[in-house]
Amino acid sequence: MKKVIDQLVKAVGRENVFTEKEDMLTYSYDAAVLDSVVPGVAVMPENSEQLGQIVKVCAENKTPMTVRGSGTNLSGGTIPSGASGVVVLTGKLNKILEINEADMYAVVQSGVVTATLAAAVEKKGLFYPPDPGSQAVSTLGGNVAENAGGLRGLKYGVTKDYVMGVSFFDAMGEYVKSGSRTVKCATGYNLTGLMVGSEGTLGVIDEIILKLIPLPKARKSMVTVFKTIEQASEAVAAIIAARIVPATLEILDNFTIRAVEAYSHAGLPIDAGALLLIEVDGHPGQVEDEGAAVEELCKKLGAESIKVAADDAERDKIWAARRSALSALARLKPTLVLEDATVPRSKIPAMVSAIQEIAAKYKIEIGTFGHAGDGNLHPTILTDKRNKEEWHRVESAIEELFDRALSMGGTLSGEHGTGLAKAPFLEKEIGHSSILFSRRLRKAMDPDSILNPGKITGVI
Amino acid sequence: MKKVIDQLVKAVGRENVFTEKEDMLTYSYDAAVLDSVVPGVAVMPENSEQLGQIVKVCAENKTPMTVRGSGTNLSGGTIPSGASGVVVLTGKLNKILEINEADMYAVVQSGVVTATLAAAVEKKGLFYPPDPGSQAVSTLGGNVAENAGGLRGLKYGVTKDYVMGVSFFDAMGEYVKSGSRTVKCATGYNLTGLMVGSEGTLGVIDEIILKLIPLPKARKSMVTVFKTIEQASEAVAAIIAARIVPATLEILDNFTIRAVEAYSHAGLPIDAGALLLIEVDGHPGQVEDEGAAVEELCKKLGAESIKVAADDAERDKIWAARRSALSALARLKPTLVLEDATVPRSKIPAMVSAIQEIAAKYKIEIGTFGHAGDGNLHPTILTDKRNKEEWHRVESAIEELFDRALSMGGTLSGEHGTGLAKAPFLEKEIGHSSILFSRRLRKAMDPDSILNPGKITGVI
Repeated sequence: MKKVIDQLVKAVGRENVFTEKEDMLTYSYDAAVLDSVVPGVAVMPENSEQLGQIVKVCAENKTPMTVRGSGTNLSGGTIPSGASGVVVLTGKLNKILEINEADMYAVVQSGVVTATLAAAVEKKGLFYPPDPGSQAVSTLGGNVAENAGGLRGLKYGVTKDYVMGVSFFDAMGEYVKSGSRTVKCATGYNLTGLMVGSEGTLGVIDEIILKLIPLPKARKSMVTVFKTIEQASEAVAAIIAARIVPATLEILDNFTIRAVEAYSHAGLPIDAGALLLIEVDGHPGQVEDEGAAVEELCKKLGAESIKVAADDAERDKIWAARRSALSALARLKPTLVLEDATVPRSKIPAMVSAIQEIAAKYKIEIGTFGHAGDGNLHPTILTDKRNKEEWHRVESAIEELFDRALSMGGTLSGEHGTGLAKAPFLEKEIGHSSILFSRRLRKAMDPDSILNPGKITGVI
Repeated sequence: MKKVIDQLVKAVGRENVFTEKEDMLTYSYDAAVLDSVVPGVAVMPENSEQLGQIVKVCAENKTPMTVRGSGTNLSGGTIPSGASGVVVLTGKLNKILEINEADMYAVVQSGVVTATLAAAVEKKGLFYPPDPGSQAVSTLGGNVAENAGGLRGLKYGVTKDYVMGVSFFDAMGEYVKSGSRTVKCATGYNLTGLMVGSEGTLGVIDEIILKLIPLPKARKSMVTVFKTIEQASEAVAAIIAARIVPATLEILDNFTIRAVEAYSHAGLPIDAGALLLIEVDGHPGQVEDEGAAVEELCKKLGAESIKVAADDAERDKIWAARRSALSALARLKPTLVLEDATVPRSKIPAMVSAIQEIAAKYKIEIGTFGHAGDGNLHPTILTDKRNKEEWHRVESAIEELFDRALSMGGTLSGEHGTGLAKAPFLEKEIGHSSILFSRRLRKAMDPDSILNPGKITGVI
């Protein structure tokens, strides 16, 4: 390791190489509930050239490397591989290189914070829709590596739908360009598509070209109160069936409502069985029509009250409350497992029932919230990992959650990635041939297994 | 070859295996201007199982195979590799397996014709936006393999943006599933993204899951007449700059207008310097506002007249005329080269000028039409390949077209793929490292080079 560290110091300067115990602990875990793994060294490049040199050092020494943005990953994608591993920090690769208003795209370095880009383009009347829950701190490089989703997936899609190009260093440190600044590009393989969601296992992302769209002209946000979560989930299905596609359609169960209210004092009704937080956007006429249709449907399906945000301040309050759900729940117990199993959206009522059955069966606490409109619920298990007996029940519950989602035509992960947490379950969803295909692909691109080993397809 | 043919007969029956000279000639070319290559045999599977058996026969015998939908490819993607090669015809794999209205997706076999699916989902109030010029005959498997674009790329994106999942046989004949029926999926590698645009070189597509969206509530189509193509292209840039995103924004130069009018008698003004064919769609209020804004902009920029389609019949007539452009131009000379170089959309005026300069410089006829709104023009060269001296000038002109597009931050191919035609130029755009990366990937997935050899990255 000393040789690697010396070479890294030469590449990026003493001040950008970290080996202190405190630093190593800091980079040993992410937001997933997994055992932490202490790396041997962390390194913070200041520019693309240094990033490339780091990859070359790792390649020459066959040293495993894990790139880390803000460490918000929920499947262990940023957990290092061990004491012989390097963590690459993208904190200084934080420049927005271009916002092209005429052609509606942005070019960013991998370490730019999601919300920073969103705010910068909004000032120019443009819109970068992907908004993962952690957008205030998450990086765009991390979003691309994990194919991050967010609250607006329903209408606007996920990160994948906005990545026009990715430049990256391959496992040999060679610089590979993919994609284009054009709206259409059918030249060569879709390496951009392949890189999205590859969790750092096929290359080290440098620059990203992101699609922007015009900012919607109008928005309407509302809080809809239901007596039961069953009613709320039926309302979700009814809205979709009416061919209305809200920008956001979020559900919070009573457990989550109480936790959020105690944490954020947003004025949520703590006796509600469930809330739907809904935003429609677009042309003012469309917003009016869709807003009215949503209100009518919710009332018909038993909504007790519907409160429309009067202004931007009220709107922001609603979404800030929703975005605090994870933090609010995390205060309640030592361990929080945020699951991400996703079903076709018409199956939301069935999935809500399944979660309740599983909570009862395994005698565990599950708070349910999430992106109901796109089928991506976040059943959140509150537990204490040190309680081995309970933890065992939690693990069984998670596996059953996966099975139930798959049996409904769903997926293990809607937006949190495979990482380490779901690698053991991957075959359940995609089958053995797909695993073999994926491993063959990976081995070809990274024969010495230096790129974030262990993630997605396990150790190969 | 006899052994292969015998095995194919065993797999799919005598009636589905073709070796007659007439058949072989039929499958020796596609819509690209390239030398035809006669295959050894063509085979038409009736179901997925037979398709898999064919791949296994080819794998066992290391026989190259090229999958062919309707042969509309414009870059030579469906030209077979030679007398030892198998052409796989998807004509009988033409079933729409599912249209899920609640979850807004369709599952299709690879041989379903694009327009057939579009019509089927429209009956249910749903919309499959990708509409390549050849949609009346092109297959969805071909669209996915080539990442086909179309007239609506501007607002609705291209095929890639609608593929939720692809099942395919890999080079060993193993069945690989990728993607999901869910709106969000972050499980495993994005193999679906990788397969889109891979031109049959990584696997043989079986079933495809396609995203559908609600049908727009209103539409407005208009024909805008300009004195010069410069004015028309400035109007395109102005519409985009005003943050209006029409569903379709097509340009036709005078040369193309005359050819189309002579062919289709649609009532186009043959003295116009250029036409813009524009459609805005969405909520009725949005259509009204955007329609008015587009009209105003076009008038301001010198439009001589603007004719709005009064009803669906008039609308259909406009788009049928536009869709006939390729056929109309093809009547004029023995050889038609339809180019596809694409630029960031603000560069449309510059690209239009570049095309005119190149036509003058090389003394060749170029008709220009295409998807101006997304930067994807189709400069169309009319020539006679048998005239060697002229053909040489045409080749030089094409290369200069590529260079000019790339120098504007563009791409060699917006929607026609790389195939054989652009493989020699690929490095110009993506660079040597990207070629090496792509070849390594391909070799790993197809070590015996049986999957559509020679396309994209050339022979490896």
